[in-house]
Amino acid sequence: EKIEVDPPKPGEVRIKIISSGICGTDKHILEGKDKVPLPAILGHEGAGIVESIGEGVTSVKPGDKVLMFPVPECRECSSCLHPKGNFCLKEKVIPPTGLMLDGTSRFTCRGRKIYHLYGTSTFTEYTVVHEIAVGKIDDGAPMDRVCIISCGVPTGFGAVFNTARVTPGSTCVVFGLGGIGSAVVMACKASGASRIIGVDINEEKFPWARDLGVTDCLNPQKLEKPVQEVVVEMTGNGVDFAFEAIGLIDTMVGALESCHPSYGVCVIIGVAPSNSQLIFDPLLLLSGRILKGGAVGEYKTRDSIPKLVTDYMEKKINTDPLITHKFPFKSINKAFELFQAGHCIRCCIRE
Amino acid sequence: EKIEVDPPKPGEVRIKIISSGICGTDKHILEGKDKVPLPAILGHEGAGIVESIGEGVTSVKPGDKVLMFPVPECRECSSCLHPKGNFCLKEKVIPPTGLMLDGTSRFTCRGRKIYHLYGTSTFTEYTVVHEIAVGKIDDGAPMDRVCIISCGVPTGFGAVFNTARVTPGSTCVVFGLGGIGSAVVMACKASGASRIIGVDINEEKFPWARDLGVTDCLNPQKLEKPVQEVVVEMTGNGVDFAFEAIGLIDTMVGALESCHPSYGVCVIIGVAPSNSQLIFDPLLLLSGRILKGGAVGEYKTRDSIPKLVTDYMEKKINTDPLITHKFPFKSINKAFELFQAGHCIRCCIRE
Ligand SMILES: NC(=O)c1ccc[n+]([C@@H]2O[C@H](COP(=O)([O-])OP(=O)(O)OC[C@H]3O[C@@H](n4cnc5c(N)ncnc54)[C@H](O)[C@@H]3O)[C@@H](O)[C@H]2O)c1
Ligand SMILES: NC(=O)c1ccc[n+]([C@@H]2O[C@H](COP(=O)([O-])OP(=O)(O)OC[C@H]3O[C@@H](n4cnc5c(N)ncnc54)[C@H](O)[C@@H]3O)[C@@H](O)[C@H]2O)c1
Ligand SMILES: [Zn+2]
Ligand SMILES: [Zn+2]
Ligand SMILES: [Zn+2]
Ligand SMILES: [Zn+2]
Repeated sequence: EKIEVDPPKPGEVRIKIISSGICGTDKHILEGKDKVPLPAILGHEGAGIVESIGEGVTSVKPGDKVLMFPVPECRECSSCLHPKGNFCLKEKVIPPTGLMLDGTSRFTCRGRKIYHLYGTSTFTEYTVVHEIAVGKIDDGAPMDRVCIISCGVPTGFGAVFNTARVTPGSTCVVFGLGGIGSAVVMACKASGASRIIGVDINEEKFPWARDLGVTDCLNPQKLEKPVQEVVVEMTGNGVDFAFEAIGLIDTMVGALESCHPSYGVCVIIGVAPSNSQLIFDPLLLLSGRILKGGAVGEYKTRDSIPKLVTDYMEKKINTDPLITHKFPFKSINKAFELFQAGHCIRCCIRE
Repeated sequence: EKIEVDPPKPGEVRIKIISSGICGTDKHILEGKDKVPLPAILGHEGAGIVESIGEGVTSVKPGDKVLMFPVPECRECSSCLHPKGNFCLKEKVIPPTGLMLDGTSRFTCRGRKIYHLYGTSTFTEYTVVHEIAVGKIDDGAPMDRVCIISCGVPTGFGAVFNTARVTPGSTCVVFGLGGIGSAVVMACKASGASRIIGVDINEEKFPWARDLGVTDCLNPQKLEKPVQEVVVEMTGNGVDFAFEAIGLIDTMVGALESCHPSYGVCVIIGVAPSNSQLIFDPLLLLSGRILKGGAVGEYKTRDSIPKLVTDYMEKKINTDPLITHKFPFKSINKAFELFQAGHCIRCCIRE
């Protein structure tokens, strides 16, 4: 479809999208599991070049290479001002409004208003994003590789480094070996975990997972008992750290039950279907388990994520193995099909 | 009733009970909310003197003043060996067996087996407890005051110092201003919390709570909207730390919703009725909230709780205000009535 993209208003930035990753959240939305205002331009994992800036914008200028983030950083709200906070309250993200902060949209299609997605909307040639959701990155950054550093990479890495704080020698289980789960595996391995159990119903993911550091792969559909019981048996009493990177209630409870009763930490990364409820016996917590969540890995997005790009440029981290497929923008539907069929880890689209 | 108490077997200690506190857990059991094997001798917050020891017992000897703990510390299991673990796995506490580790009971009443409670059973003249659940305390300790240091005090203090780690200047809300909630309030104040909101449906608790440091008292039954909404409004976006010290699902969810979405920490101390389920929208976690629980304040019981008695003796902590009433052992039923009617904070019984 041909979309008109209005110029940026004060505090806004118009960006030419160079490359986007396709994230599980986009899939959830397309399948109707995550409810957002529609019709919208999807995509929230994007790298681009600033085309023009609105009044008062100072942190980026036309020509800058940037990433855009599904969680902004206003540097003024209670979350941004708190040392541990990253979930900026400036914008209403849960549930999302689909609009800019002034309550309007910058997209129109044949006269009809089109909604934004999580303040980003990257599956388009041009988008308009608030300055508070944009971070300037290194001029030399390869856009079709660093685009996943705007959501998938920090979400997985931060779940491990910021939220769980995985310790050397520890045991971990990762539910879901897609883009996010694979980034979690990489970070667990980098943290020195001694055992990383990967759980997925799609065994196509197992060879990739093993390459990244998974020591044991489990397919719950091939087990005689619940996977959490198997994980507990494999580790004696349960893992030190469990991660849910699928977005289903059952696997969230499974992750919690996989944890050691006294000191196990369970991090929920997956986004459950809208209006669903997490249901479990609170005695699971009484013995000492910790249950946490976090958006975009609890990184303060503008402060921290451009540094991950620098780390990538300096070869301190290598996120390339997460991208198994690339498609030109015009083949986005093919890319989505591949993703939905489960044949890739991250699939990126580019100009 | 007249009870026969067998002598201690290897690894066990027979204790003459000098004083016991009545804890909310005992009330739950009496009301049938917490299911434990019955008939049992209740009471798990006790101070006594070692009467005799079984073979192999080395850490205490006859004549020693001791506390007994509802969570043992074997110093051998994965919980005990982990720096952050306190929920010893040597004994099955959830659900409890009501028996000693060898699968038998030391209590009989007219030939009938009587169960133990949480390896302690303190509402009796003599009890038998495993050495791993007994800690020697200072010879000069006043038993009718330090008895509450075996459960209520560490449970409340530890929830603040170990589990939540309340920071100076922070905002806190405490659901339930009974014995445990009051100990939580004391510890929040000692941690330098700037605002401590107390929530209870029994306004008799409010004057005591204010004396201990509560800055704002809320009675949910007198509010026009859910108490968590009021707490969020009072604090801008929610508290830094929320504590549930009642044992109801609704107030557990209320505590979680009272927390700041990004960095709020919710500690569940209350024990929900057996077989109940905690139910909430997992999006509450996605923004960064942390949900934790813990038994006996996550103190390693034998290592740490006798030190709290020393702190009491050295006047570093003063837990006396938690004890509002004392009764002789023969008036235990009167004490229970007073507690169930909500007219006290902690009520202790003594020889
Ligand atoms: N917290 C955040 O900030 C954040 C950010 C991005 C994505 N997410 C969420 O993370 C989740 C994963 O995203 P992704 O991009 O990795 O998606 P993905 O589709 O690449 O990966 C999901 C994986 O889960 C597997 N799976 C599906 N059902 C399963 C089941 N019942 N048992 C075991 N495995 C199962 C799939 O085979 C797939 O490999 C999604 O819910 C997404 O919304 C959260
Ligand atoms: N985690 C642990 O190790 C541990 C240890 C001891 C006790 N506990 C649990 O802590 C909880 C509290 O124990 P306690 O000894 O303080 O009991 P308590 O009876 O002294 O205190 C409970 C308080 O909650 C108030 N209350 C009851 N229903 C309420 C409601 N709907 N809203 C607001 N307030 C309400 C009561 O008025 C009372 O003041 C119990 O569930 C107990 O089982 C847990
Ligand atoms: Zn994403
Ligand atoms: Zn902010
Ligand atoms: Zn107790
Ligand atoms: Zn142990």
